[in-house]
Amino acid sequence: MASFTAQIRVTLKRGVLDPQGKAIEGALGSLGFEGVHQVRQGKTFDISLDASSKAKAEEELNAMCEKLLANTVIEDYAVTIE
Amino acid sequence: MASFTAQIRVTLKRGVLDPQGKAIEGALGSLGFEGVHQVRQGKTFDISLDASSKAKAEEELNAMCEKLLANTVIEDYAVTIE
Repeated sequence: MASFTAQIRVTLKRGVLDPQGKAIEGALGSLGFEGVHQVRQGKTFDISLDASSKAKAEEELNAMCEKLLANTVIEDYAVTIE
Repeated sequence: MASFTAQIRVTLKRGVLDPQGKAIEGALGSLGFEGVHQVRQGKTFDISLDASSKAKAEEELNAMCEKLLANTVIEDYAVTIE
């Protein structure tokens, strides 16, 4: 068993409305940041886990995203293992 | 003016309690993912902006984090410009 540290990024799919991102965009505008076109908010998860191999760890992490961490109807996810 | 796309990652500082991460850790355990030690949740922002140079864009993005996107008492941020 080896230890791995992974980073998962969950973001809204292109085309899905992001009202929170829009609100942040507006707030940045009122704070004087005028060059901002678009803001999209997402989530990250830093996960430490044990697995027999890097491939096995990646498989587990993808399964975690499918089952719990991402709503794959509206969200994409990306797994990076360090 | 050039257009830049940046990714900002806001994470809790080491030592700050993360009850949401703990809850996810517990949920992953009950779903049968047994190798998980630790989960920490953070936020990401994908920002498109105009700036006169990459250095200027980075400066603006750091200012956005300090003023709005991160609570620097308990959170760290990292800016990556693509």
